[in-house]
Amino acid sequence: MTYEELYSQIEKKKSCLCVGLDTDLKKIPSHLLSMENPIFEFNKAIVDATAPYCVAYKPNIAFYEAEGVSGWQQLEMTVSYIREKYPEMFIIADAKRGDIGNTAALYAKAFFEKMDFDAVTLAPYMGRDAIDPFLKYEGKWVIVLALTSNPSAEDFETKVLEDGRPLFREVIENMNDIVPESHQRVMYVVGATRAEKLAEIREFCPKHFYLVPGVGAQGGSAEEVLKYGSNDACGVLINSSRAIIYASKGEDFAQAAGEAAKNSGCYWK
Amino acid sequence: MTYEELYSQIEKKKSCLCVGLDTDLKKIPSHLLSMENPIFEFNKAIVDATAPYCVAYKPNIAFYEAEGVSGWQQLEMTVSYIREKYPEMFIIADAKRGDIGNTAALYAKAFFEKMDFDAVTLAPYMGRDAIDPFLKYEGKWVIVLALTSNPSAEDFETKVLEDGRPLFREVIENMNDIVPESHQRVMYVVGATRAEKLAEIREFCPKHFYLVPGVGAQGGSAEEVLKYGSNDACGVLINSSRAIIYASKGEDFAQAAGEAAKNSGCYWK
Repeated sequence: MTYEELYSQIEKKKSCLCVGLDTDLKKIPSHLLSMENPIFEFNKAIVDATAPYCVAYKPNIAFYEAEGVSGWQQLEMTVSYIREKYPEMFIIADAKRGDIGNTAALYAKAFFEKMDFDAVTLAPYMGRDAIDPFLKYEGKWVIVLALTSNPSAEDFETKVLEDGRPLFREVIENMNDIVPESHQRVMYVVGATRAEKLAEIREFCPKHFYLVPGVGAQGGSAEEVLKYGSNDACGVLINSSRAIIYASKGEDFAQAAGEAAKNSGCYWK
Repeated sequence: MTYEELYSQIEKKKSCLCVGLDTDLKKIPSHLLSMENPIFEFNKAIVDATAPYCVAYKPNIAFYEAEGVSGWQQLEMTVSYIREKYPEMFIIADAKRGDIGNTAALYAKAFFEKMDFDAVTLAPYMGRDAIDPFLKYEGKWVIVLALTSNPSAEDFETKVLEDGRPLFREVIENMNDIVPESHQRVMYVVGATRAEKLAEIREFCPKHFYLVPGVGAQGGSAEEVLKYGSNDACGVLINSSRAIIYASKGEDFAQAAGEAAKNSGCYWK
Protein backbone atom coordinates (compact mmCIF):
# COMPACT_ATOMS: atom_id res chain seq x y z
CA MET A 1 0.00 0.00 0.00
CA THR A 2 1.34 3.48 -0.84
CA TYR A 3 1.42 6.53 1.42
CA GLU A 4 -1.29 8.11 -0.71
CA GLU A 5 -3.50 5.01 -0.60
CA LEU A 6 -3.20 4.85 3.16
CA TYR A 7 -4.09 8.52 3.55
CA SER A 8 -7.02 8.11 1.18
CA GLN A 9 -8.35 5.21 3.28
CA ILE A 10 -8.10 7.35 6.40
CA GLU A 11 -10.03 10.18 4.68
CA LYS A 12 -12.66 7.84 3.30
CA LYS A 13 -13.31 5.98 6.54
CA LYS A 14 -12.78 9.02 8.76
CA SER A 15 -10.62 6.91 10.99
CA CYS A 16 -6.97 6.53 11.95
CA LEU A 17 -7.68 3.61 14.25
CA CYS A 18 -5.54 0.48 14.27
CA VAL A 19 -7.07 -2.39 16.21
CA GLY A 20 -4.46 -4.43 18.03
CA LEU A 21 -5.18 -8.16 17.89
CA ASP A 22 -3.48 -9.13 21.18
CA THR A 23 -5.57 -12.25 21.36
CA ASP A 24 -5.08 -14.18 24.59
CA LEU A 25 -6.84 -17.49 25.27
CA LYS A 26 -7.08 -16.49 28.93
CA LYS A 27 -9.09 -13.39 28.08
CA ILE A 28 -11.43 -14.35 25.25
CA PRO A 29 -15.05 -15.31 26.02
CA SER A 30 -15.22 -18.85 27.36
CA HIS A 31 -17.85 -20.01 24.88
CA LEU A 32 -15.22 -19.77 22.13
CA LEU A 33 -12.80 -22.14 23.83
CA SER A 34 -14.58 -25.28 22.69
CA MET A 35 -14.16 -24.33 19.02
CA GLU A 36 -11.38 -25.80 16.91
CA ASN A 37 -9.61 -22.46 16.35
CA PRO A 38 -10.72 -20.16 19.16
CA ILE A 39 -8.09 -17.47 18.47
CA PHE A 40 -9.11 -17.25 14.83
CA GLU A 41 -12.83 -17.30 15.64
CA PHE A 42 -12.35 -14.47 18.12
CA ASN A 43 -10.29 -12.43 15.64
CA LYS A 44 -12.80 -13.00 12.84
CA ALA A 45 -15.68 -11.71 14.96
CA ILE A 46 -13.64 -8.74 16.21
CA VAL A 47 -12.57 -7.85 12.66
CA ASP A 48 -16.11 -8.05 11.26
CA ALA A 49 -17.41 -5.84 14.07
CA THR A 50 -14.65 -3.21 13.97
CA ALA A 51 -13.88 -3.01 10.23
CA PRO A 52 -16.23 -0.03 9.62
CA TYR A 53 -14.35 2.04 12.20
CA CYS A 54 -10.68 1.33 11.55
CA VAL A 55 -8.07 1.35 8.79
CA ALA A 56 -5.55 -1.12 10.19
CA TYR A 57 -5.12 -4.30 12.21
CA LYS A 58 -2.05 -5.21 14.20
CA PRO A 59 -1.67 -8.79 15.42
CA ASN A 60 0.92 -8.86 18.19
CA ILE A 61 3.01 -11.85 17.17
CA ALA A 62 3.97 -12.85 20.73
CA PHE A 63 0.38 -13.79 21.52
CA TYR A 64 0.39 -16.30 18.65
CA GLU A 65 3.87 -17.69 19.28
CA ALA A 66 2.93 -18.33 22.90
CA GLU A 67 0.45 -20.93 21.60
CA GLY A 68 3.07 -22.71 19.50
CA VAL A 69 2.20 -24.32 16.18
CA SER A 70 -1.54 -23.81 16.64
CA GLY A 71 -1.05 -20.11 17.38
CA TRP A 72 1.07 -19.66 14.29
CA GLN A 73 -1.60 -21.45 12.23
CA GLN A 74 -4.34 -19.17 13.52
CA LEU A 75 -2.20 -16.11 12.83
CA GLU A 76 -1.91 -17.19 9.19
CA MET A 77 -5.68 -17.76 9.06
CA THR A 78 -6.33 -14.31 10.55
CA VAL A 79 -4.14 -12.48 8.05
CA SER A 80 -5.70 -14.37 5.11
CA TYR A 81 -9.19 -13.61 6.38
CA ILE A 82 -8.57 -9.87 6.68
CA ARG A 83 -6.74 -9.72 3.35
CA GLU A 84 -9.58 -11.45 1.47
CA LYS A 85 -12.60 -9.85 3.09
CA TYR A 86 -11.18 -6.36 3.71
CA PRO A 87 -8.46 -5.84 1.09
CA GLU A 88 -8.27 -2.13 1.89
CA MET A 89 -6.94 -2.79 5.43
CA PHE A 90 -3.34 -2.07 6.38
CA ILE A 91 -2.10 -5.13 8.27
CA ILE A 92 0.85 -4.77 10.64
CA ALA A 93 2.91 -7.61 12.10
CA ASP A 94 3.86 -6.32 15.53
CA ALA A 95 6.96 -8.43 15.73
CA LYS A 96 9.69 -5.99 16.83
CA ARG A 97 12.27 -8.11 15.05
CA GLY A 98 15.84 -6.95 14.49
CA ASP A 99 18.70 -9.12 13.27
CA ILE A 100 21.62 -9.17 10.80
CA GLY A 101 21.00 -9.15 7.07
CA ASN A 102 20.63 -12.83 6.18
CA THR A 103 18.38 -13.40 9.19
CA ALA A 104 16.34 -10.24 8.64
CA ALA A 105 15.72 -11.45 5.09
CA LEU A 106 14.08 -14.57 6.51
CA TYR A 107 11.86 -12.61 8.87
CA ALA A 108 10.86 -10.53 5.84
CA LYS A 109 10.01 -13.75 4.03
CA ALA A 110 7.89 -14.94 6.97
CA PHE A 111 5.84 -11.75 7.19
CA PHE A 112 5.73 -10.59 3.58
CA GLU A 113 5.72 -13.88 1.62
CA LYS A 114 4.39 -16.63 3.88
CA MET A 115 1.86 -14.13 5.19
CA ASP A 116 0.65 -11.03 3.40
CA PHE A 117 1.33 -8.32 5.97
CA ASP A 118 1.73 -4.72 4.78
CA ALA A 119 4.23 -3.77 7.45
CA VAL A 120 6.34 -5.12 10.28
CA THR A 121 7.59 -3.41 13.42
CA LEU A 122 11.38 -3.50 13.82
CA ALA A 123 13.89 -2.78 16.58
CA PRO A 124 16.68 -0.43 15.44
CA TYR A 125 19.44 -1.45 17.88
CA MET A 126 21.53 -3.36 15.29
CA GLY A 127 21.29 -0.57 12.72
CA ARG A 128 20.31 -0.47 9.08
CA ASP A 129 21.35 -4.10 8.38
CA ALA A 130 18.25 -5.09 10.34
CA ILE A 131 15.97 -2.85 8.27
CA ASP A 132 17.18 -3.01 4.65
CA PRO A 133 16.03 -6.57 3.77
CA PHE A 134 12.42 -5.61 4.52
CA LEU A 135 12.60 -2.62 2.16
CA LYS A 136 13.38 -4.87 -0.80
CA TYR A 137 9.67 -5.72 -0.93
CA GLU A 138 7.93 -3.06 -2.98
CA GLY A 139 4.77 -1.66 -1.42
CA LYS A 140 5.69 -2.99 2.01
CA TRP A 141 6.54 -0.84 5.03
CA VAL A 142 8.81 -0.98 8.05
CA ILE A 143 7.76 0.56 11.35
CA VAL A 144 10.83 1.34 13.43
CA LEU A 145 10.73 1.65 17.22
CA ALA A 146 11.62 5.22 18.17
CA LEU A 147 10.11 6.32 21.49
CA THR A 148 7.97 3.58 22.97
CA SER A 149 5.08 3.75 25.42
CA ASN A 150 6.58 1.68 28.26
CA PRO A 151 8.15 3.11 31.43
CA SER A 152 11.65 1.78 30.74
CA ALA A 153 11.81 3.56 27.38
CA GLU A 154 13.92 5.90 29.49
CA ASP A 155 16.59 3.26 30.09
CA PHE A 156 18.09 3.80 26.63
CA GLU A 157 15.74 5.48 24.13
CA THR A 158 15.90 8.90 25.75
CA LYS A 159 19.60 8.75 26.61
CA VAL A 160 21.38 11.85 25.33
CA LEU A 161 24.24 11.50 22.85
CA GLU A 162 27.37 13.62 22.93
CA ASP A 163 25.90 15.98 20.32
CA GLY A 164 22.91 16.68 22.58
CA ARG A 165 20.28 14.67 20.71
CA PRO A 166 18.43 11.81 22.40
CA LEU A 167 18.91 8.31 20.99
CA PHE A 168 15.35 8.11 19.62
CA ARG A 169 16.02 11.25 17.54
CA GLU A 170 19.26 9.78 16.22
CA VAL A 171 17.29 6.66 15.21
CA ILE A 172 14.67 8.68 13.31
CA GLU A 173 17.13 11.04 11.61
CA ASN A 174 19.52 8.24 10.69
CA MET A 175 16.73 6.15 9.10
CA ASN A 176 15.35 9.19 7.28
CA ASP A 177 18.83 9.84 5.88
CA ILE A 178 19.52 6.35 4.59
CA VAL A 179 16.14 5.47 3.07
CA PRO A 180 15.27 7.58 0.00
CA GLU A 181 11.79 9.15 0.27
CA SER A 182 11.55 7.37 3.58
CA HIS A 183 8.12 8.72 4.51
CA GLN A 184 6.71 6.48 1.75
CA ARG A 185 8.11 3.29 3.32
CA VAL A 186 9.03 3.94 6.93
CA MET A 187 6.88 4.76 9.96
CA TYR A 188 7.99 5.27 13.56
CA VAL A 189 6.55 3.93 16.78
CA VAL A 190 5.93 6.81 19.20
CA GLY A 191 4.00 5.99 22.36
CA ALA A 192 0.78 7.84 23.21
CA THR A 193 1.94 7.97 26.81
CA ARG A 194 4.45 10.59 25.61
CA ALA A 195 2.03 12.84 23.70
CA GLU A 196 4.00 15.97 24.54
CA LYS A 197 6.97 14.47 22.68
CA LEU A 198 4.91 14.04 19.49
CA ALA A 199 5.00 17.78 18.77
CA GLU A 200 8.77 17.81 19.33
CA ILE A 201 9.27 14.88 16.94
CA ARG A 202 7.00 16.46 14.29
CA GLU A 203 9.48 19.33 14.08
CA PHE A 204 12.31 17.17 12.73
CA CYS A 205 10.15 14.46 11.13
CA PRO A 206 7.16 16.23 9.56
CA LYS A 207 6.00 13.92 6.78
CA HIS A 208 6.11 10.42 8.26
CA PHE A 209 3.34 8.33 9.69
CA TYR A 210 3.70 7.42 13.35
CA LEU A 211 2.23 4.25 14.76
CA VAL A 212 1.03 5.30 18.20
CA PRO A 213 0.34 2.59 20.77
CA GLY A 214 -0.48 3.23 24.41
CA VAL A 215 -4.01 4.62 24.06
CA GLY A 216 -6.52 2.92 26.35
CA ALA A 217 -5.15 0.35 28.80
CA GLN A 218 -1.74 2.08 28.90
CA GLY A 219 -3.27 5.50 29.68
CA GLY A 220 -2.62 7.61 26.56
CA SER A 221 -5.32 9.85 25.03
CA ALA A 222 -6.37 9.76 21.36
CA GLU A 223 -7.33 13.42 21.48
CA GLU A 224 -3.84 14.46 22.58
CA VAL A 225 -2.18 12.22 20.00
CA LEU A 226 -4.21 13.85 17.22
CA LYS A 227 -3.53 17.31 18.62
CA TYR A 228 0.24 16.94 18.89
CA GLY A 229 1.01 14.22 16.37
CA SER A 230 -1.05 14.69 13.21
CA ASN A 231 0.08 16.35 9.98
CA ASP A 232 -1.52 17.21 6.60
CA ALA A 233 -1.91 13.53 5.72
CA CYS A 234 -3.21 12.67 9.19
CA GLY A 235 0.18 11.12 9.91
CA VAL A 236 -0.84 8.90 12.79
CA LEU A 237 -2.20 5.41 13.12
CA ILE A 238 -3.46 5.14 16.68
CA ASN A 239 -3.44 1.63 18.05
CA SER A 240 -5.78 0.39 20.72
CA SER A 241 -5.80 -3.28 21.70
CA ARG A 242 -7.18 -4.32 25.06
CA ALA A 243 -9.70 -1.45 25.40
CA ILE A 244 -11.37 -2.58 22.18
CA ILE A 245 -11.02 -6.33 21.87
CA TYR A 246 -11.83 -7.03 25.52
CA ALA A 247 -14.59 -4.40 25.85
CA SER A 248 -16.88 -7.24 26.94
CA LYS A 249 -16.18 -10.81 28.00
CA GLY A 250 -19.74 -11.96 27.28
CA GLU A 251 -21.45 -13.27 24.16
CA ASP A 252 -21.74 -9.63 23.01
CA PHE A 253 -17.92 -9.26 22.85
CA ALA A 254 -17.85 -8.45 19.14
CA GLN A 255 -20.64 -5.89 19.30
CA ALA A 256 -18.96 -4.27 22.32
CA ALA A 257 -15.65 -4.15 20.42
CA GLY A 258 -17.40 -2.43 17.51
CA GLU A 259 -18.85 0.16 19.88
CA ALA A 260 -15.48 0.68 21.55
CA ALA A 261 -13.81 1.18 18.16
CA LYS A 262 -16.53 3.66 17.14
CA ASN A 263 -16.02 5.61 20.38
CA SER A 264 -12.23 5.28 20.49
CA GLY A 265 -11.67 8.92 19.63
CA CYS A 266 -9.92 7.80 16.42
CA TYR A 267 -13.11 7.67 14.33
CA TRP A 268 -14.78 10.96 13.43
CA LYS A 269 -17.66 10.25 11.05
CA MET B 1 21.20 -24.40 34.06
CA THR B 2 23.37 -22.52 36.56
CA TYR B 3 26.57 -20.58 35.86
CA GLU B 4 28.54 -23.29 37.66
CA GLU B 5 26.88 -26.11 35.71
CA LEU B 6 27.61 -24.38 32.42
CA TYR B 7 31.25 -23.85 33.33
CA SER B 8 31.55 -27.45 34.47
CA GLN B 9 30.18 -28.65 31.11
CA ILE B 10 32.76 -26.51 29.32
CA GLU B 11 35.55 -27.98 31.44
CA LYS B 12 34.31 -31.52 31.02
CA LYS B 13 33.87 -31.35 27.26
CA LYS B 14 36.86 -29.06 26.69
CA SER B 15 34.69 -26.96 24.44
CA CYS B 16 33.04 -23.56 24.41
CA LEU B 17 31.44 -24.14 21.03
CA CYS B 18 27.84 -23.27 20.32
CA VAL B 19 26.54 -24.70 17.04
CA GLY B 20 24.12 -22.34 15.32
CA LEU B 21 21.21 -24.19 13.72
CA ASP B 22 20.50 -21.70 10.91
CA THR B 23 18.78 -24.40 8.93
CA ASP B 24 17.78 -23.27 5.45
CA LEU B 25 15.88 -25.54 3.04
CA LYS B 26 17.82 -23.96 0.18
CA LYS B 27 21.13 -25.06 1.66
CA ILE B 28 20.59 -28.52 3.12
CA PRO B 29 21.54 -31.63 1.10
CA SER B 30 18.93 -32.33 -1.55
CA HIS B 31 18.42 -35.97 -0.53
CA LEU B 32 16.73 -34.73 2.67
CA LEU B 33 14.10 -32.70 0.86
CA SER B 34 11.85 -35.66 0.12
CA MET B 35 11.52 -36.49 3.81
CA GLU B 36 8.48 -35.39 5.80
CA ASN B 37 10.43 -33.07 8.12
CA PRO B 38 13.65 -32.19 6.30
CA ILE B 39 14.63 -29.36 8.68
CA PHE B 40 14.30 -31.63 11.68
CA GLU B 41 16.09 -34.53 9.97
CA PHE B 42 18.97 -32.22 9.08
CA ASN B 43 19.16 -30.82 12.63
CA LYS B 44 19.01 -34.29 14.18
CA ALA B 45 21.94 -35.52 12.08
CA ILE B 46 23.94 -32.35 12.73
CA VAL B 47 23.31 -32.58 16.48
CA ASP B 48 24.30 -36.24 16.69
CA ALA B 49 27.53 -35.54 14.79
CA THR B 50 28.54 -32.39 16.67
CA ALA B 51 27.39 -33.18 20.23
CA PRO B 52 30.81 -34.51 21.36
CA TYR B 53 32.44 -31.20 20.42
CA CYS B 54 30.06 -28.52 21.67
CA VAL B 55 28.21 -27.39 24.78
CA ALA B 56 25.37 -25.42 23.22
CA TYR B 57 22.98 -25.24 20.28
CA LYS B 58 21.40 -22.06 18.97
CA PRO B 59 18.49 -22.36 16.55
CA ASN B 60 18.03 -19.02 14.79
CA ILE B 61 14.28 -18.57 15.03
CA ALA B 62 13.95 -16.61 11.75
CA PHE B 63 14.91 -19.68 9.73
CA TYR B 64 11.99 -21.61 11.23
CA GLU B 65 9.43 -18.79 11.04
CA ALA B 66 10.25 -18.34 7.37
CA GLU B 67 8.76 -21.81 6.80
CA GLY B 68 5.54 -20.96 8.61
CA VAL B 69 3.64 -23.56 10.63
CA SER B 70 5.82 -26.42 9.45
CA GLY B 71 8.98 -24.54 10.43
CA TRP B 72 7.63 -23.85 13.88
CA GLN B 73 6.72 -27.52 14.25
CA GLN B 74 10.21 -28.66 13.31
CA LEU B 75 11.73 -26.14 15.72
CA GLU B 76 9.70 -27.69 18.55
CA MET B 77 10.83 -31.16 17.44
CA THR B 78 14.47 -30.05 17.34
CA VAL B 79 14.42 -28.61 20.86
CA SER B 80 12.68 -31.72 22.25
CA TYR B 81 15.19 -33.98 20.53
CA ILE B 82 18.23 -32.16 21.95
CA ARG B 83 16.67 -31.89 25.41
CA GLU B 84 15.92 -35.62 25.59
CA LYS B 85 19.04 -37.06 24.04
CA TYR B 86 21.59 -34.51 25.27
CA PRO B 87 20.15 -33.07 28.51
CA GLU B 88 23.47 -31.41 29.35
CA MET B 89 23.28 -29.06 26.35
CA PHE B 90 22.58 -25.35 26.76
CA ILE B 91 19.91 -24.48 24.18
CA ILE B 92 19.57 -20.87 23.03
CA ALA B 93 16.61 -19.39 21.15
CA ASP B 94 18.22 -16.79 18.93
CA ALA B 95 15.10 -14.68 18.72
CA LYS B 96 16.30 -11.13 19.47
CA ARG B 97 12.88 -10.29 20.85
CA GLY B 98 12.18 -7.09 22.76
CA ASP B 99 8.75 -5.80 23.71
CA ILE B 100 6.78 -4.31 26.61
CA GLY B 101 6.07 -6.34 29.75
CA ASN B 102 2.83 -8.16 28.93
CA THR B 103 4.12 -9.07 25.46
CA ALA B 104 7.58 -10.05 26.67
CA ALA B 105 5.87 -12.40 29.12
CA LEU B 106 4.28 -14.21 26.18
CA TYR B 107 7.55 -14.56 24.31
CA ALA B 108 8.97 -15.99 27.54
CA LYS B 109 6.09 -18.46 27.62
CA ALA B 110 6.78 -19.45 24.00
CA PHE B 111 10.48 -20.14 24.54
CA PHE B 112 10.56 -21.34 28.15
CA GLU B 113 7.22 -23.16 28.54
CA LYS B 114 6.03 -24.25 25.09
CA MET B 115 9.62 -25.11 24.28
CA ASP B 116 12.35 -25.92 26.79
CA PHE B 117 15.06 -23.45 25.80
CA ASP B 118 17.66 -22.47 28.41
CA ALA B 119 18.10 -18.93 27.13
CA VAL B 120 16.77 -16.41 24.67
CA THR B 121 18.54 -13.53 22.93
CA LEU B 122 16.91 -10.14 23.55
CA ALA B 123 17.18 -6.63 22.10
CA PRO B 124 17.67 -3.98 24.79
CA TYR B 125 16.23 -0.92 22.98
CA MET B 126 12.99 -0.76 25.03
CA GLY B 127 14.80 -1.15 28.34
CA ARG B 128 14.36 -3.44 31.31
CA ASP B 129 10.61 -3.95 30.72
CA ALA B 130 11.63 -6.12 27.77
CA ILE B 131 14.00 -8.22 29.91
CA ASP B 132 12.36 -8.71 33.31
CA PRO B 133 9.57 -11.15 32.34
CA PHE B 134 12.18 -13.65 31.13
CA LEU B 135 14.04 -13.52 34.44
CA LYS B 136 10.98 -14.74 36.32
CA TYR B 137 11.83 -18.25 35.11
CA GLU B 138 14.31 -19.75 37.51
CA GLY B 139 17.31 -21.40 35.90
CA LYS B 140 16.69 -19.63 32.58
CA TRP B 141 18.96 -17.02 31.06
CA VAL B 142 18.67 -13.89 28.94
CA ILE B 143 21.32 -12.98 26.41
CA VAL B 144 21.20 -9.26 25.71
CA LEU B 145 22.52 -7.71 22.49
CA ALA B 146 25.46 -5.45 23.34
CA LEU B 147 27.96 -5.08 20.49
CA THR B 148 26.91 -7.17 17.51
CA SER B 149 28.97 -8.61 14.67
CA ASN B 150 27.29 -6.82 11.74
CA PRO B 151 28.69 -3.73 9.97
CA SER B 152 25.82 -1.41 10.96
CA ALA B 153 26.40 -2.09 14.66
CA GLU B 154 28.04 1.30 14.32
CA ASP B 155 24.77 3.04 13.45
CA PHE B 156 23.67 3.10 17.09
CA GLU B 157 25.46 0.57 19.33
CA THR B 158 28.77 2.43 19.34
CA LYS B 159 27.25 5.92 19.50
CA VAL B 160 28.81 7.90 22.35
CA LEU B 161 26.59 9.24 25.14
CA GLU B 162 27.09 12.63 26.77
CA ASP B 163 29.06 11.05 29.61
CA GLY B 164 31.56 9.60 27.13
CA ARG B 165 30.47 5.96 27.27
CA PRO B 166 29.29 4.16 24.12
CA LEU B 167 25.68 2.91 24.08
CA PHE B 168 26.71 -0.77 24.26
CA ARG B 169 28.56 -0.06 27.51
CA GLU B 170 25.53 1.73 28.94
CA VAL B 171 23.44 -1.33 28.03
CA ILE B 172 25.81 -3.72 29.82
CA GLU B 173 26.32 -1.56 32.91
CA ASN B 174 22.62 -0.75 33.21
CA MET B 175 21.63 -4.42 33.02
CA ASN B 176 24.35 -5.42 35.48
CA ASP B 177 23.02 -2.78 37.89
CA ILE B 178 19.38 -3.79 37.78
CA VAL B 179 19.68 -7.58 37.86
CA PRO B 180 21.07 -8.92 41.17
CA GLU B 181 23.99 -11.32 40.65
CA SER B 182 23.43 -10.75 36.96
CA HIS B 183 26.35 -12.89 35.79
CA GLN B 184 24.31 -15.92 36.94
CA ARG B 185 21.38 -15.08 34.64
CA VAL B 186 22.50 -12.61 31.98
CA MET B 187 24.94 -12.99 29.09
CA TYR B 188 25.85 -10.42 26.44
CA VAL B 189 26.19 -10.76 22.69
CA VAL B 190 29.57 -9.43 21.57
CA GLY B 191 30.56 -10.07 17.97
CA ALA B 192 33.77 -11.93 17.13
CA THR B 193 34.34 -9.43 14.34
CA ARG B 194 35.18 -6.96 17.12
CA ALA B 195 37.64 -9.13 19.05
CA GLU B 196 39.71 -6.13 20.12
CA LYS B 197 36.63 -4.78 21.92
CA LEU B 198 36.32 -7.96 23.99
CA ALA B 199 39.30 -7.00 26.16
CA GLU B 200 37.83 -3.53 26.67
CA ILE B 201 34.46 -4.98 27.70
CA ARG B 202 36.11 -7.50 30.06
CA GLU B 203 37.43 -4.56 32.07
CA PHE B 204 34.00 -3.35 33.12
CA CYS B 205 32.18 -6.68 32.85
CA PRO B 206 34.59 -9.34 34.15
CA LYS B 207 32.36 -12.18 35.35
CA HIS B 208 29.68 -12.57 32.67
CA PHE B 209 29.48 -15.03 29.84
CA TYR B 210 29.51 -13.53 26.37
CA LEU B 211 27.80 -15.21 23.45
CA VAL B 212 30.15 -14.54 20.56
CA PRO B 213 28.81 -14.93 17.02
CA GLY B 214 30.67 -13.98 13.89
CA VAL B 215 33.33 -16.71 13.82
CA GLY B 216 33.57 -18.48 10.46
CA ALA B 217 31.42 -17.10 7.64
CA GLN B 218 31.45 -13.60 9.14
CA GLY B 219 35.24 -13.54 9.44
CA GLY B 220 35.97 -13.57 13.20
CA SER B 221 38.65 -15.83 14.74
CA ALA B 222 38.04 -18.24 17.64
CA GLU B 223 41.65 -17.86 18.76
CA GLU B 224 41.31 -14.10 19.13
CA VAL B 225 37.99 -14.41 20.93
CA LEU B 226 39.55 -16.77 23.48
CA LYS B 227 42.60 -14.55 23.83
CA TYR B 228 40.69 -11.32 24.44
CA GLY B 229 37.34 -12.52 25.77
CA SER B 230 37.80 -15.42 28.16
CA ASN B 231 37.88 -15.24 31.96
CA ASP B 232 38.42 -17.70 34.85
CA ALA B 233 35.18 -19.55 34.03
CA CYS B 234 35.95 -19.54 30.29
CA GLY B 235 33.32 -16.81 29.94
CA VAL B 236 32.64 -17.20 26.24
CA LEU B 237 30.29 -19.33 24.18
CA ILE B 238 31.56 -19.05 20.64
CA ASN B 239 28.90 -19.59 18.02
CA SER B 240 29.56 -20.90 14.56
CA SER B 241 26.70 -21.66 12.21
CA ARG B 242 27.30 -21.83 8.47
CA ALA B 243 30.94 -22.96 8.68
CA ILE B 244 29.84 -26.05 10.60
CA ILE B 245 26.39 -27.04 9.44
CA TYR B 246 27.13 -26.49 5.74
CA ALA B 247 30.67 -27.91 5.80
CA SER B 248 29.52 -30.32 3.09
CA LYS B 249 26.43 -30.40 0.93
CA GLY B 250 26.78 -34.11 0.14
CA GLU B 251 25.59 -37.25 1.88
CA ASP B 252 28.52 -36.83 4.29
CA PHE B 253 27.14 -33.52 5.58
CA ALA B 254 26.80 -34.69 9.19
CA GLN B 255 30.27 -36.22 9.34
CA ALA B 256 31.73 -33.05 7.80
CA ALA B 257 29.88 -30.95 10.37
CA GLY B 258 31.35 -33.07 13.16
CA GLU B 259 34.85 -32.57 11.75
CA ALA B 260 34.28 -28.83 11.38
CA ALA B 261 33.07 -28.61 15.00
CA LYS B 262 36.10 -30.57 16.18
CA ASN B 263 38.42 -28.23 14.28
CA SER B 264 36.53 -25.03 15.04
CA GLY B 265 39.18 -23.76 17.42
CA CYS B 266 36.60 -23.89 20.24
CA TYR B 267 37.34 -27.52 21.17
CA TRP B 268 40.63 -28.29 22.86
CA LYS B 269 40.64 -31.94 23.88
